[in-house]
Amino acid sequence: MYDKLYHNLPVSEALEEEEEVDLFDYYYDEPGSLPGTLNIEEDADPPSIVLIDYSETTATRVQLATPEACVPYLDSESVSWIDVQGLGSEDVLQRLGKVFHLHPLILEDIVNVPQRPKIEDYKDQLVIIAQMAMLNEQEDSFWIEQVSFVVGKHYLLTVQEEPEHDSFEPVRQRIRHNRGTIRKHGVDYLTYALLDGIIDGFFPILEVYGERIDQLEDEVVTNPTRKTLEKIYRIRRELLALRRCIWPQRETCSKLMRDISPLIRPDVQIYLRDCYDHTIQVIDIIETYRELTSGLMDVYLSSVSNKMNEIMKLLTVISSIFIPLTFIVGVYGMNFDHDASPLNMPELEWYFGYPACWALMIATASGLVYFFWRRGWFENVSSLKDE
Amino acid sequence: MYDKLYHNLPVSEALEEEEEVDLFDYYYDEPGSLPGTLNIEEDADPPSIVLIDYSETTATRVQLATPEACVPYLDSESVSWIDVQGLGSEDVLQRLGKVFHLHPLILEDIVNVPQRPKIEDYKDQLVIIAQMAMLNEQEDSFWIEQVSFVVGKHYLLTVQEEPEHDSFEPVRQRIRHNRGTIRKHGVDYLTYALLDGIIDGFFPILEVYGERIDQLEDEVVTNPTRKTLEKIYRIRRELLALRRCIWPQRETCSKLMRDISPLIRPDVQIYLRDCYDHTIQVIDIIETYRELTSGLMDVYLSSVSNKMNEIMKLLTVISSIFIPLTFIVGVYGMNFDHDASPLNMPELEWYFGYPACWALMIATASGLVYFFWRRGWFENVSSLKDE
Amino acid sequence: MYDKLYHNLPVSEALEEEEEVDLFDYYYDEPGSLPGTLNIEEDADPPSIVLIDYSETTATRVQLATPEACVPYLDSESVSWIDVQGLGSEDVLQRLGKVFHLHPLILEDIVNVPQRPKIEDYKDQLVIIAQMAMLNEQEDSFWIEQVSFVVGKHYLLTVQEEPEHDSFEPVRQRIRHNRGTIRKHGVDYLTYALLDGIIDGFFPILEVYGERIDQLEDEVVTNPTRKTLEKIYRIRRELLALRRCIWPQRETCSKLMRDISPLIRPDVQIYLRDCYDHTIQVIDIIETYRELTSGLMDVYLSSVSNKMNEIMKLLTVISSIFIPLTFIVGVYGMNFDHDASPLNMPELEWYFGYPACWALMIATASGLVYFFWRRGWFENVSSLKDE
Amino acid sequence: MYDKLYHNLPVSEALEEEEEVDLFDYYYDEPGSLPGTLNIEEDADPPSIVLIDYSETTATRVQLATPEACVPYLDSESVSWIDVQGLGSEDVLQRLGKVFHLHPLILEDIVNVPQRPKIEDYKDQLVIIAQMAMLNEQEDSFWIEQVSFVVGKHYLLTVQEEPEHDSFEPVRQRIRHNRGTIRKHGVDYLTYALLDGIIDGFFPILEVYGERIDQLEDEVVTNPTRKTLEKIYRIRRELLALRRCIWPQRETCSKLMRDISPLIRPDVQIYLRDCYDHTIQVIDIIETYRELTSGLMDVYLSSVSNKMNEIMKLLTVISSIFIPLTFIVGVYGMNFDHDASPLNMPELEWYFGYPACWALMIATASGLVYFFWRRGWFENVSSLKDE
Amino acid sequence: MYDKLYHNLPVSEALEEEEEVDLFDYYYDEPGSLPGTLNIEEDADPPSIVLIDYSETTATRVQLATPEACVPYLDSESVSWIDVQGLGSEDVLQRLGKVFHLHPLILEDIVNVPQRPKIEDYKDQLVIIAQMAMLNEQEDSFWIEQVSFVVGKHYLLTVQEEPEHDSFEPVRQRIRHNRGTIRKHGVDYLTYALLDGIIDGFFPILEVYGERIDQLEDEVVTNPTRKTLEKIYRIRRELLALRRCIWPQRETCSKLMRDISPLIRPDVQIYLRDCYDHTIQVIDIIETYRELTSGLMDVYLSSVSNKMNEIMKLLTVISSIFIPLTFIVGVYGMNFDHDASPLNMPELEWYFGYPACWALMIATASGLVYFFWRRGWFENVSSLKDE
Ligand SMILES: [Mg+2]
Ligand SMILES: [Mg+2]
Ligand SMILES: [Mg+2]
Ligand SMILES: [Mg+2]
Ligand SMILES: [Mg+2]
Ligand SMILES: [Mg+2]
Ligand SMILES: [Mg+2]
Ligand SMILES: [Mg+2]
Ligand SMILES: [Mg+2]
Ligand SMILES: [Mg+2]
Ligand SMILES: [Mg+2]
Ligand SMILES: [Mg+2]
Ligand SMILES: [Mg+2]
Ligand SMILES: [Mg+2]
Ligand SMILES: [Mg+2]
Ligand SMILES: [Mg+2]
Ligand SMILES: [Mg+2]
Ligand SMILES: [Mg+2]
Ligand SMILES: [Mg+2]
Ligand SMILES: [Mg+2]
Ligand SMILES: [Mg+2]
Ligand SMILES: [Mg+2]
Ligand SMILES: [Mg+2]
Ligand SMILES: [Mg+2]
Ligand SMILES: [Mg+2]
Ligand SMILES: [Mg+2]
Ligand SMILES: [Mg+2]
Ligand SMILES: [Mg+2]
Ligand SMILES: [Mg+2]
Ligand SMILES: [Mg+2]
Ligand SMILES: [Mg+2]
Repeated sequence: MYDKLYHNLPVSEALEEEEEVDLFDYYYDEPGSLPGTLNIEEDADPPSIVLIDYSETTATRVQLATPEACVPYLDSESVSWIDVQGLGSEDVLQRLGKVFHLHPLILEDIVNVPQRPKIEDYKDQLVIIAQMAMLNEQEDSFWIEQVSFVVGKHYLLTVQEEPEHDSFEPVRQRIRHNRGTIRKHGVDYLTYALLDGIIDGFFPILEVYGERIDQLEDEVVTNPTRKTLEKIYRIRRELLALRRCIWPQRETCSKLMRDISPLIRPDVQIYLRDCYDHTIQVIDIIETYRELTSGLMDVYLSSVSNKMNEIMKLLTVISSIFIPLTFIVGVYGMNFDHDASPLNMPELEWYFGYPACWALMIATASGLVYFFWRRGWFENVSSLKDE
Repeated sequence: MYDKLYHNLPVSEALEEEEEVDLFDYYYDEPGSLPGTLNIEEDADPPSIVLIDYSETTATRVQLATPEACVPYLDSESVSWIDVQGLGSEDVLQRLGKVFHLHPLILEDIVNVPQRPKIEDYKDQLVIIAQMAMLNEQEDSFWIEQVSFVVGKHYLLTVQEEPEHDSFEPVRQRIRHNRGTIRKHGVDYLTYALLDGIIDGFFPILEVYGERIDQLEDEVVTNPTRKTLEKIYRIRRELLALRRCIWPQRETCSKLMRDISPLIRPDVQIYLRDCYDHTIQVIDIIETYRELTSGLMDVYLSSVSNKMNEIMKLLTVISSIFIPLTFIVGVYGMNFDHDASPLNMPELEWYFGYPACWALMIATASGLVYFFWRRGWFENVSSLKDE
Repeated sequence: MYDKLYHNLPVSEALEEEEEVDLFDYYYDEPGSLPGTLNIEEDADPPSIVLIDYSETTATRVQLATPEACVPYLDSESVSWIDVQGLGSEDVLQRLGKVFHLHPLILEDIVNVPQRPKIEDYKDQLVIIAQMAMLNEQEDSFWIEQVSFVVGKHYLLTVQEEPEHDSFEPVRQRIRHNRGTIRKHGVDYLTYALLDGIIDGFFPILEVYGERIDQLEDEVVTNPTRKTLEKIYRIRRELLALRRCIWPQRETCSKLMRDISPLIRPDVQIYLRDCYDHTIQVIDIIETYRELTSGLMDVYLSSVSNKMNEIMKLLTVISSIFIPLTFIVGVYGMNFDHDASPLNMPELEWYFGYPACWALMIATASGLVYFFWRRGWFENVSSLKDE
Repeated sequence: MYDKLYHNLPVSEALEEEEEVDLFDYYYDEPGSLPGTLNIEEDADPPSIVLIDYSETTATRVQLATPEACVPYLDSESVSWIDVQGLGSEDVLQRLGKVFHLHPLILEDIVNVPQRPKIEDYKDQLVIIAQMAMLNEQEDSFWIEQVSFVVGKHYLLTVQEEPEHDSFEPVRQRIRHNRGTIRKHGVDYLTYALLDGIIDGFFPILEVYGERIDQLEDEVVTNPTRKTLEKIYRIRRELLALRRCIWPQRETCSKLMRDISPLIRPDVQIYLRDCYDHTIQVIDIIETYRELTSGLMDVYLSSVSNKMNEIMKLLTVISSIFIPLTFIVGVYGMNFDHDASPLNMPELEWYFGYPACWALMIATASGLVYFFWRRGWFENVSSLKDE
Repeated sequence: MYDKLYHNLPVSEALEEEEEVDLFDYYYDEPGSLPGTLNIEEDADPPSIVLIDYSETTATRVQLATPEACVPYLDSESVSWIDVQGLGSEDVLQRLGKVFHLHPLILEDIVNVPQRPKIEDYKDQLVIIAQMAMLNEQEDSFWIEQVSFVVGKHYLLTVQEEPEHDSFEPVRQRIRHNRGTIRKHGVDYLTYALLDGIIDGFFPILEVYGERIDQLEDEVVTNPTRKTLEKIYRIRRELLALRRCIWPQRETCSKLMRDISPLIRPDVQIYLRDCYDHTIQVIDIIETYRELTSGLMDVYLSSVSNKMNEIMKLLTVISSIFIPLTFIVGVYGMNFDHDASPLNMPELEWYFGYPACWALMIATASGLVYFFWRRGWFENVSSLKDE
């Protein structure tokens, strides 16, 4: 499942740990299962149902024991936000479906997470599937969790995968303390406020990636190692995952800010346009980062080739200098018999034979060093540092 | 032909076997053949015709001997599902065409497999060509088989390439045991249920690919070999094949969930929207996997370059240390005649000549080792492991 | 010109021959020439005009001497197919233009080959430019030839570049022997039948390419040579050429199967839909092959790098083992004077000096061999095969 | 923030300086903040409010002390341009919002910079967000700054991030000295003139990049170094940043030149079409530069490989010549005892033994040199220059 | 300016010359200049105004002294083609603008060259900006020059950058000698004829590139050098420039062949469709060439890697054969004292010691040669040719 994927996974740092990243991101029905079959995971938390009911003047928060306890609130004029957290009981979820008259397929999409984000219009209800991403407190890991919205005339049902955390706390505070205009608006504004919270959650994550890319830009030219390569790949992979969460959300916002349904009033559409702007900005940043990392990959490859050149140059310099010298000393290590012929290595008997031999070798070596120095091969020797 | 292609082909594992993968995927008419010419393969199974007739109260299953035996069922109010399995008899198939009033070109598309998936509207009939993919029992291979649908008012004709297996068994069970709402709905819902079964069949295959990519991600950095390269290529190739099966299916679902024909009623269109969602998700996963494998290819190339650097460094270290030493010992292997001149290699006669020579060599070697150590060249020697 | 290009060019095999492939594929007017100027090539065949006139009951085939001889047939109720083969006479072609009331620009497009495939609607005439590709008898080469269609109410004019061969023989046989329904239909069905013949001609060519790609897939991993590289490039290049022929044909079929003109009746549009399907399939195969060859290019590059690694490893192993040994023997080849000092190479006088020296060398070599063996460097030595 | 990013950053030259480039380009709300919350940066300049009020006959320029001082001008027939520079006071900005009846979300977009460029239509106001890029005086660095426009019937409000510089001075001069037709037109023409100034500001920046790419084209083939690589990457990165500023501006111009609002009159739409042309040209140049730098990257990679080949050839030449020679001299350094057998190295006692040995060596070396010379390996030795 | 760019630049051959190619292709206003400001280059030719006035029966050619001399012709029924060549006088151009009632922005686009090609409809005038490309007489260089069209009811104004050459001479001859139907048609046909001339001018240039690519295809596999790389890059760069000239022209033709304006009559639209076809063909060829050169780049990179493999193999073969041999001769160059122990190198005193040593070395070398020969390493030695 999705949230397990990144749960406590330090963003792109924890490469070595044998974390079980499940690439197979969407939930799929056991082939042949009935449409509407709910999948309850063993370790899922039991659903908790919290109702927040408010109007311009009052606001109450109630923990409900059963889905049916929602019923009295649904048709009242006040805004009723029913927030269900946890998908651990088929019975509760089925009853929830009945209370809200949900089509079995919608209930399935809400429960069998993760699904691709989308929006569907059922005349008297709008159904929105969204993926919520949150940076953790240490700012080194993020969670992804599905949130489903059912927007009715006087109520909003939200269903979260897990109760631990969400991006909605500030909205709850605004309702409680009557901050801003939220209590003056209806269900549509509440929907906006929550969607806005979800999208705002992507920015801090992307900021972390921005910093990591920044670091990689330095690393890739100064000290490219095998780790660098892995980091680039991981960042690309995780950006891919984030893009899948936010890309379809764009269509959701785009539809909401147009006249999709009478459930969304024109004055709230202006707010949804802001939400749409932010979605576009998130996508824009992700695409930019993907282009940058793609460029980094090229730079990395070139850097590795460059380093190879440096290594080869070192080998070539040392071999080229010493191999001829070794040949020279080899010559004078030969055992031709001087007694047999005066032509046989008379040098060995010269008075200055040995110094002359050294002179020859020094001249040879100097010539070669000069040759390499002229070509600038010694300039980068100091940069031969490595992984 | 298509199904032969992957028949018993362990998913991307069986690289070595000389399996005969036919890249030329679509059936094509012998140039110049008459439109409507049916191609019967030598080894094709003879068609078996199974009729399942049901209404809300009853359900029967009959094995029919001839296509003409279908006729009484076609106009009855009950839903009649005629499932033909096997394309081995031109006579039977031609008679089937007559019984169902099929245009010769449609019959051709049904029989001359594989064809590209599509949907066509013939007023009183909808014709759907689909490709059905199934993971086998060992979860290491998959089949692809064409299924054609002819949707009438009171009947559904499906034609499968082969009788061995299909994704339809759960639907048959639902009809038989009256599970879910299938017996309350009509032909349109049956069509949905079967299409849903086909699309659901892609998910388990993709899950297997997800796991293989996961393994490759580890392999490509820790131990990239020639095999790794082949595996990446094979996965990309097979994803390409899967994409060709599912991509055009998207249009089929998209058309069905809109008002394409009075044969599909609005309440079933909601189900078809779910089917469309799943198709999009399959495509989404395939595209993600393709991006990931494309990234893996880059990582592989870089890893190979990195390993080359390691090898070169080893060669350079050993050569750089021993070549100068060999030169030194070569010097003192020269035969300059000390008797001829006191300048000729007096070192050879020094009291500490030999130890001094060793001291020089040890100093040289140490200096070079220090030089390389400072540059960090020894850090990765332990990672020089190989294929 | 186009057909020269591939005339007798064995498909992607004839790489070495200095064949004159003209990349500049489309005909272009001498800058400044009058619109409607016809270009007659020196070596073009003189046009032969064959008329096939048929109705449900009769069918005649006449070789016409002049274009004007067509006139009596053009308004008769029977279907008159005038097939002109060869573009070698300006006079005949101009008269042909007059007989059929062709706009000078259309006549130009018909004669000045090759042109990009297209369809144009002139109220009482439909003009179609198509490119016909045919595999030759040895199945190792293909031709491309332009065929132009002028569709009238009771006649069809087709103009081929050359008389040697075309894809139309089966259609002629169907008319002659009254096979299928062709004699029951009109000009529109004849147009379909010929277009279908053209598109069917691409499949056998693509099948050949499919086999070649199959071979390359093996070659590129087992034995990648410089030839492999050339073959991949050539296949990509030829697929590009085929794509240019078929891609615009898609629009032709697409327009024809919609209500472009009263000249095409609804019952024939169903046939044209089949034709459109096949065009899409040809494009689909070409794109698939292009993706595969692009992947092969990556695999090739990696294979070359891999082979380099193997070569370097061999060099490194041999150098690393023998260079230290050579140093050792060099040590004991030094001439330090033992008489001058007991410290000078006492080893040389040890009783076990020489065996000890060998023991040292064997130990050194064994250690290094073990080092490499542990790293698995010997596993692939057997795969060091080469071009 | 945006302008800090490039503030005084010499265009793509200042690669080494540890400048803090913030990849995270768009402003984002503290998650959970109220919609409409303004973010005032610590170091932001206090807003200065300059009003320029003009008609065909008169033009005045007033520095206003408070936002409320604008009020008398807003409904007067004359054109009133209120230019606010600096975002350093929440109080002033909130009051500005009230004076101009700005929606809180618009005020937020104006203040919380940078935002993605966009245009929004609020019946009686048009809101435009733009990014202004300016080359500095030394022509080696550029600034990016957000400018927001609120277009009313008789007024134009512009809000700049900072007071130091803008592209608007020429427009101020045209108003002051009544040059051109600006004083004869209304608010719409003023809006055009300012937008035109912004877009014109991109051209000089791009000209600098054009010159740098020109230099790189030479560098990459004659002398490709690690620096070259960094420069290419940096240019790509900065072009990416510029593209993000200008790309959405295209939509702004496109909407303005169509009938988006009665605030823009037809005679000014012609001017906006010119503005649109220039935007397209800027985008066109950026895309061209991106393609060129992408090509440069390929050339760079190839150049590095080419240089490696040169290095390897040098090593191979020297090794291939001297290693065999060293073997030969090694042979005659062996100590086989001639006294023990006449077969033991009789060469050592030949009269011409030593000269013959040299002859052998010279012949060997010459043969190898000829071998390499025939293959042309010496031609490029002179080009072995390096970084 | 544009034409300077390629003036006398041999097509992709003149790579070495330090030609000053200005990548910054479009003209841009001095930031802050008034809209409508004309930029007169110092070295621009003074405008010459040539009027060609014709009807079906008569045709005159007059050199006009002043723009105002055009006036009498503009409303006469005959077709009046005013061709202005050279942009060297602001006074003349401003008066021209007045005579033709040109909007200042249009005059600006005509004079401040180069602009992006486009078409604009001003009710009674059509304004077309086009880029004219011409191969020179030596067929090794091309010019690009802007031509602007102002199409009125009875007149056509064309403005060329320079008087030296244009693609219009054949049209002038057709008018003069009354060839073809040009004198029977109106201004719209003249516009077509000139646009057709411009587009026809691209084909010969592309033919030259086609030949160069053809040569490169051979070069890149047989003898890839650093020059090859530069040539590929240059061709890609110049194709990019050509694409920028022709790509927007496609929209011009596309709009003209539809019902954009009553100034273009239906019978001329058929001609413009031909013009559109040619534009598409030019774009098609450019895209094909770009794909081919992109493939060539890959082949080049692979070829360089292949050559590296060859070099490394040579080094490895020579090193692997001689390093072991050198070790062996080193062994027998050791000075172990045989007198001190019978174990010390008894081989040196064997009767067949020296021959045995040679036998050992020959066996070793043969073994290695066989090893390499079996692996096929000697097959390509003859191909080790180089740059
Ligand atoms: Mg979960
Ligand atoms: Mg389901
Ligand atoms: Mg939660
Ligand atoms: Mg937000
Ligand atoms: Mg940095
Ligand atoms: Mg906003
Ligand atoms: Mg089959
Ligand atoms: Mg057929
Ligand atoms: Mg089956
Ligand atoms: Mg499903
Ligand atoms: Mg893993
Ligand atoms: Mg669903
Ligand atoms: Mg021809
Ligand atoms: Mg023409
Ligand atoms: Mg022919
Ligand atoms: Mg066909
Ligand atoms: Mg195979
Ligand atoms: Mg078909
Ligand atoms: Mg700021
Ligand atoms: Mg906000
Ligand atoms: Mg400012
Ligand atoms: Mg401008
Ligand atoms: Mg230059
Ligand atoms: Mg302009
Ligand atoms: Mg210039
Ligand atoms: Mg000029
Ligand atoms: Mg201007
Ligand atoms: Mg000119
Ligand atoms: Mg033309
Ligand atoms: Mg050739
Ligand atoms: Mg034409």
